[in-house]
Amino acid sequence: MEVRFSERAMGLKASEIRELLKLAEMPEIISFAGGLPAPELFPVKEMEEVAQKVLEKNGRLALQYSSTEGFAPLREIIAKERMSPAGVNVSANDIAVTSGSQQGLEFSARIFVNEGDTIICESPSYLGAINAFKAYRPNFVEIPMDDNGMIVDELEKALKANPNTKMIYTIPDFQNPTGRTMSDDRRKRVAELAAEYKVPVIEDNPYGDLIFEGKRHPSIKSFDKEGWVVYLGTYSKTFCPGLRIGWICASPQILEKYIIVKQGADLQCSSFDQRLTALFMETHNLNEHIEKIKVVYKNRRDLMIDSIKKYFPEGIKYTFPTGGLFTWVELKEGLDAADVLKEALKENVAYVPGGSFFPNGGHPNFFRMNYSCMDEEKIVEGIKRLGKVLAKFY
Amino acid sequence: MEVRFSERAMGLKASEIRELLKLAEMPEIISFAGGLPAPELFPVKEMEEVAQKVLEKNGRLALQYSSTEGFAPLREIIAKERMSPAGVNVSANDIAVTSGSQQGLEFSARIFVNEGDTIICESPSYLGAINAFKAYRPNFVEIPMDDNGMIVDELEKALKANPNTKMIYTIPDFQNPTGRTMSDDRRKRVAELAAEYKVPVIEDNPYGDLIFEGKRHPSIKSFDKEGWVVYLGTYSKTFCPGLRIGWICASPQILEKYIIVKQGADLQCSSFDQRLTALFMETHNLNEHIEKIKVVYKNRRDLMIDSIKKYFPEGIKYTFPTGGLFTWVELKEGLDAADVLKEALKENVAYVPGGSFFPNGGHPNFFRMNYSCMDEEKIVEGIKRLGKVLAKFY
Repeated sequence: MEVRFSERAMGLKASEIRELLKLAEMPEIISFAGGLPAPELFPVKEMEEVAQKVLEKNGRLALQYSSTEGFAPLREIIAKERMSPAGVNVSANDIAVTSGSQQGLEFSARIFVNEGDTIICESPSYLGAINAFKAYRPNFVEIPMDDNGMIVDELEKALKANPNTKMIYTIPDFQNPTGRTMSDDRRKRVAELAAEYKVPVIEDNPYGDLIFEGKRHPSIKSFDKEGWVVYLGTYSKTFCPGLRIGWICASPQILEKYIIVKQGADLQCSSFDQRLTALFMETHNLNEHIEKIKVVYKNRRDLMIDSIKKYFPEGIKYTFPTGGLFTWVELKEGLDAADVLKEALKENVAYVPGGSFFPNGGHPNFFRMNYSCMDEEKIVEGIKRLGKVLAKFY
Repeated sequence: MEVRFSERAMGLKASEIRELLKLAEMPEIISFAGGLPAPELFPVKEMEEVAQKVLEKNGRLALQYSSTEGFAPLREIIAKERMSPAGVNVSANDIAVTSGSQQGLEFSARIFVNEGDTIICESPSYLGAINAFKAYRPNFVEIPMDDNGMIVDELEKALKANPNTKMIYTIPDFQNPTGRTMSDDRRKRVAELAAEYKVPVIEDNPYGDLIFEGKRHPSIKSFDKEGWVVYLGTYSKTFCPGLRIGWICASPQILEKYIIVKQGADLQCSSFDQRLTALFMETHNLNEHIEKIKVVYKNRRDLMIDSIKKYFPEGIKYTFPTGGLFTWVELKEGLDAADVLKEALKENVAYVPGGSFFPNGGHPNFFRMNYSCMDEEKIVEGIKRLGKVLAKFY
């Protein structure tokens, strides 16, 4: 049976991360490959109460179709409680609910990018975004990073050199995969460049609240005067990823396009999950819950970094994330992290090889490690095993 | 601020149905415009128990990320309990869970259709599908229908005349918008033509279980020997639309593409809603629940048709649906149902003008009416009002 797929579908390949997540489910593997939040921190008991109340009070509405842009009280809460601390003063009308921020990423390419147009992103960048964008067959221009995030002078050069740029994609806070954070003046500069070159910025910000010390960074959108920044947020990393509740915050003429695209894509997000999320936020304190998550993740980051220092061969570089879920490891030139992974799996330890985080390929000597969903004992044991494997290559 | 959208986004327009749904929310309007199931039939009490149990037993898993293809026990239930009565013997591996069948529709165009390729569909066809497909800028070829559904000789002619046909789209059971049903031999012939011309059939089947008398019709997929038929199902019309649980049943090489597309689109459906649905199906009898729905809808259909006979001017044609949610009304040539609607709204009654159900335009003298979500008294009153309005035009 020879099926004729569309050109865009012929090129589609399964994501390495998702395939690895399957592997990570085997109980004997200590996996730093996923990007899962710690499930022991989910507010399961509280959700029992909340689910009961939603069904008792508004059962029929919670199980019926509802509007594409999302449940109005939830959009109000997102505007007040999530956007305002990111320095963005908006109302429910500026918010649309999406199925996680992944849906917002896919819609962004659909809305802004014709085949062959340029997307500018950090080098490396989030694999799930790269894969979603690739379906629209863009040209990727990667901007190098340092410990203060994307290097904005390089961004400006790229904007000049590529007048067909339709989108700047960035994860300013505790970036996936590097764990790096963009400095505040660079954020301001990115917003200015967007307006100057009339190019939308897709600010993907799933981890911003998970800052280990001090207040959260102002979002790029907080420096956005004309409305060029599209902010993608989510409750997946601070509440319950299984409910798939994310959002888009954008200026009206842009948000309208997202809503129409969502209408054709899946009509709406789950009415029930939106009401659950809204009622949880009304009856509980998410910020207190986030404080608990931060204590656990900071502790795990410390333990992972300390274990790396102790067990990895000398000369291996790694980032020191000040929040979020990931650290990024650089092996010496000439090593391929995918080859090392094959050895690591024999020792029952896993990570994600870094190659696929570079949309234009290359850089095989990097890998990403997640520290959020593994208990303390396993972090130490896993890094120990990995150190043993790496020693063979050094 | 002049934003440069992609070519596909520039052409996007809000769906008439969704805009009308907003209107239908005004309490003074008797609206036959929507396609909503009757919320008083939702199993709210049962869902309270089910939600409690899911969270008690598997709370962490229900709130965590899970696999793209969907919760395995749910896929097993879909295969056994929903596909088997449609004459399709498959296992969980042949099923992927989607966010309603709307998501399956959008993915279908993405997977099969390049710009300018032909999509063959019924004339008229489902507005939500037409809008989702239009984003991929296909050529639509409409096949006329009679009371036995799509006329298959015309389908064959269209397949011959359009070698760039990449997809046949059909709703064989109680079609949206016409309420018409395809005869069993035509179903068989559609499956044969698909294999002969090597063109996938997208069988959209949200209403098949809602047959008012007798056993459900065999699906087109039940006649599919080689795997050319992609079956899209959903729990939205028989259980709870707010949970957004639909599915795709397709042969492995096709299903794989849908799963990869879903990964990029939104990673997965709600873990919680999938588990709720699965546990409901394990602990309750959906078929008994469907029997209750059928009694109510059949009664409402009877009442609507009887009221049309009584209150509409003579010479107006309408379909007699043997299941599902809709009847389709044909006014005399020269009348525009959109003009009539303006008058109808003054009398606080609404329907969907039929024009947008024809992808290539024309046919302004039709409209669609829904009888599932309006109580008996309002059906009579609404049709009475509409009859008064129509009398002005006759």
